[in-house]
Amino acid sequence: MIQYEIEAQSDNSRAGTLHTPDGSIKTPIFMPVGTLATVKGMTTGEIKELGAEIILGNTYHLHLRPGDLIIKKMGGLQKFMNWDRPVLTDSGGFQIFSLAKLLKLNEEGAIIRSHIDGTKLKLTPEISIDIQKNLGSTIMMCLDECLKLPASRQEVERSTDLTEKWARRCKEASISKSDVFKEQALFGIIQGGHDLDLREKSMNQIVEIGFDGYAIGGLSVGESKEEMYNVTHHITPKMPAGKPRYLMGVGDPSDLLEGIEAGIDMFDCVMPTRNARNGMLFTSHGKIIIKQSRFKQDPEPLDPECECPTCKNYSRAYLQHLFKSGEILGVRLNTYHNLFFFISLVKKARKAIIERRFIEFKKDFLKKFNR
Amino acid sequence: MIQYEIEAQSDNSRAGTLHTPDGSIKTPIFMPVGTLATVKGMTTGEIKELGAEIILGNTYHLHLRPGDLIIKKMGGLQKFMNWDRPVLTDSGGFQIFSLAKLLKLNEEGAIIRSHIDGTKLKLTPEISIDIQKNLGSTIMMCLDECLKLPASRQEVERSTDLTEKWARRCKEASISKSDVFKEQALFGIIQGGHDLDLREKSMNQIVEIGFDGYAIGGLSVGESKEEMYNVTHHITPKMPAGKPRYLMGVGDPSDLLEGIEAGIDMFDCVMPTRNARNGMLFTSHGKIIIKQSRFKQDPEPLDPECECPTCKNYSRAYLQHLFKSGEILGVRLNTYHNLFFFISLVKKARKAIIERRFIEFKKDFLKKFNR
Repeated sequence: MIQYEIEAQSDNSRAGTLHTPDGSIKTPIFMPVGTLATVKGMTTGEIKELGAEIILGNTYHLHLRPGDLIIKKMGGLQKFMNWDRPVLTDSGGFQIFSLAKLLKLNEEGAIIRSHIDGTKLKLTPEISIDIQKNLGSTIMMCLDECLKLPASRQEVERSTDLTEKWARRCKEASISKSDVFKEQALFGIIQGGHDLDLREKSMNQIVEIGFDGYAIGGLSVGESKEEMYNVTHHITPKMPAGKPRYLMGVGDPSDLLEGIEAGIDMFDCVMPTRNARNGMLFTSHGKIIIKQSRFKQDPEPLDPECECPTCKNYSRAYLQHLFKSGEILGVRLNTYHNLFFFISLVKKARKAIIERRFIEFKKDFLKKFNR
Repeated sequence: MIQYEIEAQSDNSRAGTLHTPDGSIKTPIFMPVGTLATVKGMTTGEIKELGAEIILGNTYHLHLRPGDLIIKKMGGLQKFMNWDRPVLTDSGGFQIFSLAKLLKLNEEGAIIRSHIDGTKLKLTPEISIDIQKNLGSTIMMCLDECLKLPASRQEVERSTDLTEKWARRCKEASISKSDVFKEQALFGIIQGGHDLDLREKSMNQIVEIGFDGYAIGGLSVGESKEEMYNVTHHITPKMPAGKPRYLMGVGDPSDLLEGIEAGIDMFDCVMPTRNARNGMLFTSHGKIIIKQSRFKQDPEPLDPECECPTCKNYSRAYLQHLFKSGEILGVRLNTYHNLFFFISLVKKARKAIIERRFIEFKKDFLKKFNR
């Protein structure tokens, strides 16, 4: 179904290829987030042009709008949105514990209220898999509980055990429920908060069940960088080497490089797209807030070292004007640039791993980026 | 400077070429509106791709944001917005009599309050030309009074005479004020309300002054189609044949064809772009309101006869989903399609003129479009 192949390894970091029925992905990889069957502001043609090989779709959001049954009727998520490369769908777990109003949580699943119109919805491992089969994604994710931290050790243990039970049911559902479009891969999610031993315990539980890939969930949700890096560096090298490793919802450029150093293969984050809409832009010399008055008459490109069309064709003065005027083109040019920046960064990191100079690359990048 | 050449004529309609220092334009032509140095939602690359040869910029809007002096510093409007083809700027006249709050109007000019922040501004023929020189457009327009109709004959006469005086001063200013970027063409505007004799009087006054091209202003501002067509058909054939004729702010597909029949060469209108943002889409079989529930599960393209990327790659169901979810991509795909529809329509009309079958073409198009 899917197959992960390591091409180069340098300490813990790996460069590999993930073969899927929808095409191959070079890892490490950054996956742009396409919440509602669109990476906000971009066409799929542009997403390809800027080098994305896989995107993420959000099960909870797509279940609400337009509805997974409509997407199923339209031939699946990829056909619906005109994207012919792999797509990964999350389980809805993150949204039911953040965006939606949680009414009830027990072993069976969760009852929530939609953030759109207040409709009551039920999400269980079986329902999550069902929706993801209707969407027809390349890679499905197990439903997990995303616990609010800090939490007592006892509470983290309870939650981790629930996540294990749900993971088992997700796997069963993925096997027993008939496929709608094709055979889909399923990834398990490791929880366990910030306690390294509970993380290990969760990892062992999930690996014991056996999945096509493994994700670290519950990070980048407000904890310190130190805590996040601590868990990532501890757990990642212990995860099965022959399977892809995915750090969910992470992160900023330093987080990506830290994850890659630890041996992570896949990342997703709304940061490049969301920050672009807010006028926060990434450059090789650090972040830029485009609305600042110093850019008002600045004829320079956003990042003179960047090769993207935004930087090749437009000035900071123009980008500021578009942002201040609320013009859609501003969102587009900013989004394109930020995604280009993230995707290029991970591609360069991959090259550095293959050329056995990743640590040096990371140091050089961060020195310039953080100065 | 600019030169208009007739290539084919069929009754009153003409196919020609307008040669400008920024490139040639095949007429009749539809000019997308790029109010704030961007055709809303589109890159200039896309605007070219869909066949636009000239766009319009709004002097009043650009004077407020980002300011014509900033645009001048950035190398002019075309460089600022990365558009290397001709651009026409209006005079600000239309906005000061509609969008802004008019505080005072006399022979010298107008005192207005900005619709953005309430700042007091003065607009005179000299100031309008000054701003348009800072923008560096290919074609400038004279400042005119856009009278609210219906108005008494006396009032229309007064207004028409004021427009004549302002036109004279615009011409003088365009000659006496030094050029910032290049020699720019200047078009005069014919006013005169719905009285055919006052329209003729205004035309004679404006033609007497002598301009590089002539526009009909003050139409498509709420009057009936009959009144608009009446003025257009009466005045257009009397306008100088050797100069381009521009019908300002017009219109929907039937208006365009009616204008072309009367001998108009140039049109601009926000309709394709604005309606796209509101989900009103033009197809060869008439208009579509994309949010209607009948399109919810419709796998068909927006217009099966259309060759644009929106119609080639996406379903009506997807377009409805994007529109209902407020996704930017929806605005983009809709805008691209509507502009493609308008531009293609005028290109087809041009071809029909050259092939001496314009009346037949118009009849066939409207029969299908209006059924």
